[in-house]
Amino acid sequence: MPRVVVHVMPKPEILDPQGKAVAAALPRLGFEGISSVRQGKRFELEVEGEVTDEVLASLREAATTLLSNPVIEDVIALEVEDPATEGQA
Amino acid sequence: MPRVVVHVMPKPEILDPQGKAVAAALPRLGFEGISSVRQGKRFELEVEGEVTDEVLASLREAATTLLSNPVIEDVIALEVEDPATEGQA
Repeated sequence: MPRVVVHVMPKPEILDPQGKAVAAALPRLGFEGISSVRQGKRFELEVEGEVTDEVLASLREAATTLLSNPVIEDVIALEVEDPATEGQA
Repeated sequence: MPRVVVHVMPKPEILDPQGKAVAAALPRLGFEGISSVRQGKRFELEVEGEVTDEVLASLREAATTLLSNPVIEDVIALEVEDPATEGQA
């Protein structure tokens, strides 16, 4: 069954408190050399049937309206993974 | 500045209420043909200096201990994106 992976990140101009918290915690726990962290979301959607251009356009709309908050987040990528053809998913 | 992207997903055997909620909302909003949704996290870490094997090993440890909860989540991938060499970040 093909899978579409949707990547959502906070917009660059939006403060990201979760990412800031992680960035502050890293040196405390001994991990140095990280200047900034931003935290976003990753969705894996299992699609019934083929991922046509039409399906992908519909998923892109779903990603921008339902999976992300367009006021503060960007959908930065939609990836199609087909286990049948790629063997990597 | 190179960037390391960490992908975290709930373990397959763990119930994912956020993903279930999204999967239930999609058909209500007119998006059909999605059989399952799982929601995970995506972290973008800006690394100072070069991403050596040593840095990557340290980041992998940080990913499994700090960025994810190993009881319920898996770090499924660490990707290195170097804007200088790849031009895609």
